Amino acid sequence: MNKPFLYTILSPELLDIYDVKDSIVVIIDVFRATSTIATALYNGANNIIPVDSVEKCIAIGKQTPKSITAGERDGKVIEGLQFGNSPAEYPKNVIEGKTLVLTTTNGTKLLHMALNNGAKEIITGSFPNLQAVCNYLLKQNKNVFLGCSAWKNKVNLEDTLFAGAVINSVKEHFTIHCDSSLMAEQMYTLHKNDMYAFARLTTHWHRLSNFGLDKDLEYCVTANVANVLPLYKNGSLIAAKF
Amino acid sequence: MNKPFLYTILSPELLDIYDVKDSIVVIIDVFRATSTIATALYNGANNIIPVDSVEKCIAIGKQTPKSITAGERDGKVIEGLQFGNSPAEYPKNVIEGKTLVLTTTNGTKLLHMALNNGAKEIITGSFPNLQAVCNYLLKQNKNVFLGCSAWKNKVNLEDTLFAGAVINSVKEHFTIHCDSSLMAEQMYTLHKNDMYAFARLTTHWHRLSNFGLDKDLEYCVTANVANVLPLYKNGSLIAAKF
Repeated sequence: MNKPFLYTILSPELLDIYDVKDSIVVIIDVFRATSTIATALYNGANNIIPVDSVEKCIAIGKQTPKSITAGERDGKVIEGLQFGNSPAEYPKNVIEGKTLVLTTTNGTKLLHMALNNGAKEIITGSFPNLQAVCNYLLKQNKNVFLGCSAWKNKVNLEDTLFAGAVINSVKEHFTIHCDSSLMAEQMYTLHKNDMYAFARLTTHWHRLSNFGLDKDLEYCVTANVANVLPLYKNGSLIAAKF
Repeated sequence: MNKPFLYTILSPELLDIYDVKDSIVVIIDVFRATSTIATALYNGANNIIPVDSVEKCIAIGKQTPKSITAGERDGKVIEGLQFGNSPAEYPKNVIEGKTLVLTTTNGTKLLHMALNNGAKEIITGSFPNLQAVCNYLLKQNKNVFLGCSAWKNKVNLEDTLFAGAVINSVKEHFTIHCDSSLMAEQMYTLHKNDMYAFARLTTHWHRLSNFGLDKDLEYCVTANVANVLPLYKNGSLIAAKF
């Protein structure tokens, strides 16, 4: 039997080169959207609605019972919203049973692109839910695109490293003819044992650590502390059973 | 004094994200356009005219005295042209004093994009002329973009490795806040001593080795065997004195 294929897409700007139709697309936005999504669902959020603007966030928040609106700019909660983008803000006593309406830029853009391009399934991945993502991909046995959200379309290391972590775990079960995947896996293998130190070299860490977010960022590169599978369905991410 | 900055652009599709105005753009197309360009100029070609179609290649060849038209598809010389894309086809006795009109796809596309986006200088880089490129960049002391030609916009390893080789050599003299550059340099450092073996894992090597081009490809990852600096001026690449 032929193995399904797997590709890594290093920036949303490169998505259109690939035919994602009928495939699973994994949205990766390590710092911090997809790490926060995994954490909130792991701690019992009912669902998460990713939106690409503050206006939509506020409007959907108003229409939705038991909702929390969230979003940050420059390390601060955006005016008019209730919470920020940090996974640490969503313990069980805050988020259980709630709908999180989350504004993100890079990740939500990629998610909508993948949807418009005909992706069959969209899930989100981050180190906190690495194992859940790998288990799901192995079980589904479909073609996979690991989609890095990047930063304003610029390739970033943290999303690439997560793609590499997935590849490292599932590669025997996929056909991989993709230099980006080869590079991602080698970078992950090289740094899996010094992830905290290495992640500090990324441009995004520099950007966010100016806002005192080091602890947050360390959490975001910690594997398997929120092993849930966020699956996109009818406009929401929910924790999928599989 | 502030150091000039350096960025790596992993695919032509990502060029527009960056402002290349007033900067040096290094066009990288390791397999095999920029390796062939360096070799032909090193062996005495008068100039090289890169074109993006077979029709233009034939038309310019007809207008240009002492010219050679060249281009390949699937490892064979294109009908109507005289030579192929292999650096081995351009020894001194063939190319000296001639104008090479060369059709390439990925590299020429990137070159024209950089030109249209206002790059101040455009040079080409490949392992055979690695040292010349590095010496030139150090001497010019301007902002630099290392532009990988990729393959149909898909990120490729061989161009990334060359970017890494340049960074490894010049990094002390530039400000580098760029995850692609960090990744490129680490991949190069990891594989600089097993380049022949590692390059065999790239998708492009697989593609071309089907046409019996292994020796060609080995040459293309060999450093400093054609140390000349191809500089784009008035529609041609010439060997620049500096």
